[in-house]
Amino acid sequence: MSKKPTLAVVGATGAVGTVMLDILSTREDVYGEIRLVASPRSAGKKLTVRGEEVEVVALAPEVFDGVDVAMFDVPDAVSAEWAPVAAARGAVAVDNSGAFRMDPDVPLVVPEVNGEQARNRPKGIISNPNCTTLSMIVAVGALHRRYGLRELVVASYQAASGAGQEGIDALYDQLERVGGNRELGNRAGDVRAAVGDGLGPFPAPLAMNVVPWAGSLKDGGWSSEELKVRNESRKILGLPDLRVSATCVRVPVVTTHSLAVHAVFERETDQREAQALLAGAAGVVLVDNPELHEFPTPADVVGTDPTWVGRVRRSLDDARGLDLFLCGDNLRKGAALNTAQIAELVAAEFTG
Amino acid sequence: MSKKPTLAVVGATGAVGTVMLDILSTREDVYGEIRLVASPRSAGKKLTVRGEEVEVVALAPEVFDGVDVAMFDVPDAVSAEWAPVAAARGAVAVDNSGAFRMDPDVPLVVPEVNGEQARNRPKGIISNPNCTTLSMIVAVGALHRRYGLRELVVASYQAASGAGQEGIDALYDQLERVGGNRELGNRAGDVRAAVGDGLGPFPAPLAMNVVPWAGSLKDGGWSSEELKVRNESRKILGLPDLRVSATCVRVPVVTTHSLAVHAVFERETDQREAQALLAGAAGVVLVDNPELHEFPTPADVVGTDPTWVGRVRRSLDDARGLDLFLCGDNLRKGAALNTAQIAELVAAEFTG
Repeated sequence: MSKKPTLAVVGATGAVGTVMLDILSTREDVYGEIRLVASPRSAGKKLTVRGEEVEVVALAPEVFDGVDVAMFDVPDAVSAEWAPVAAARGAVAVDNSGAFRMDPDVPLVVPEVNGEQARNRPKGIISNPNCTTLSMIVAVGALHRRYGLRELVVASYQAASGAGQEGIDALYDQLERVGGNRELGNRAGDVRAAVGDGLGPFPAPLAMNVVPWAGSLKDGGWSSEELKVRNESRKILGLPDLRVSATCVRVPVVTTHSLAVHAVFERETDQREAQALLAGAAGVVLVDNPELHEFPTPADVVGTDPTWVGRVRRSLDDARGLDLFLCGDNLRKGAALNTAQIAELVAAEFTG
Repeated sequence: MSKKPTLAVVGATGAVGTVMLDILSTREDVYGEIRLVASPRSAGKKLTVRGEEVEVVALAPEVFDGVDVAMFDVPDAVSAEWAPVAAARGAVAVDNSGAFRMDPDVPLVVPEVNGEQARNRPKGIISNPNCTTLSMIVAVGALHRRYGLRELVVASYQAASGAGQEGIDALYDQLERVGGNRELGNRAGDVRAAVGDGLGPFPAPLAMNVVPWAGSLKDGGWSSEELKVRNESRKILGLPDLRVSATCVRVPVVTTHSLAVHAVFERETDQREAQALLAGAAGVVLVDNPELHEFPTPADVVGTDPTWVGRVRRSLDDARGLDLFLCGDNLRKGAALNTAQIAELVAAEFTG
């Protein structure tokens, strides 16, 4: 087969969809037709991809006819209904929702870590991991290959855009409300009063604050976001007994998730060796010169593709432990980019 | 002895000193005279304490004559020189710098945890812990008494005021520069460009960003702040072999440090029991109803005295582990309040 595959982008108008069109316009062009699909209220809208205007069509079974690869970035319930429809019509669905990630018949793929699993898709569906997991897993996977991962203790510094366009808008709105006021932040409740009705999708003010909550409540007081980090890391790395404790916290950053990672391995680690293997790992950039104040921060990383890693230290009380700090753009590698990379693995089957 | 003791406040004009005067004005008044001391350039300034104007005097040996307790909040080098001077003139020096914290002849005291050690001060000096350690140690100490602490993995969300008034000013300045701009945060470097020359004491922009650095560089890539959390937790809890990994990160919050804490104990833990003992611990408030979106955040905690704890979860892969999120005002319990509490322990020896 040498025909270039046809791609459908479902959810083309959302925060991730917008980044997806940018990515499709800048990466090697491996597709023939690209169809843009969204909810009926966005149908008729014109969006630019690969330098051309394309009209958005409303989600319906027939939009998948002739489609080879369909990328979904829509709510869980929409994916749960429509990814199987796309698959039934012959497309491989690459889904960025949580609907299928833990389905044993759906691979959960990060090309740099377990790309070979993309071919084993009995339901015609491949899942893209959660953005928080994706922000760290390429770097952690590289260390795992060398040292054998046993345990992760993770604390996140998650960006507003993880809550979609609504989250981005709420943070900008809040920053505007507090930005010129030098009295705020000294008395309990004053930031909350200034933010007023502008909480948006967050359960507490995000500007001038941090909020230890993302997702929904699960058993034992854990949030869904924290359990995703645990369950998805286990599945991607093929380590069903991996010990994982995550605390997920939202910070007033627009885009790019950061994580403080304490990783314990089977084998003894070495700081210089770990730095060298991270520097050489696909999809990872090492920025680790604290003497020059060089380490990754969201403001320096946003809009880029790799996972940026710094602050690599061997744990002082356990030679098998490493502590590090990393940043990844949650809309790019954390969502659209990894979805696009998975779709490219599938596309290569058609053209390869 | 029944004469009310004389107090000196050294560093009365700084960010912590300002909070100290507020604390001295609102807590039970156990002192006779209060002398306010600062650098020569602040001498002559008038500050209000206990509702009265007091003129600031310049630091000199004779200001300690007749002083029973001297609280120091000044840079390490100033404390190193002057706390022994105060002690030689008969005052007990309660020092909030890093100069004496690890000195085996100087107790490192948190009244709720190891208050009895304040009496054992061969040099006439008592040290107040670092603000990041103080923000968590009361809660961790309460759990340690029940379960026996073995290991801490900590990630911090540290406020700008941990870097003093200069840090506060820089954050407000940066928030003003970025506050109305809805284009920022999407491209690497755009926040850095907007912040421009307003970095202040931080090595990267703090507004709309997080910065994985606090303090100075030590061996193995660790920051001084991270090693303080390790060394001071060990000393306060009397656990010289406690395993501690900390990653310290600055966030765009004016005041109140937060920490995500993963604690591993000798004994099996229980979520409900841990919540109950934290709720009953002196100096701790439990706010842990995630189903109602109730958890501590800096904006709700700033200006208050206790350590606020929420998100208490038993680790899913280790019955001896607990994960939690906590907040403490770094200028109050993290600095001025704990110093005042130690000074009150000493004052009680004079009046008791």
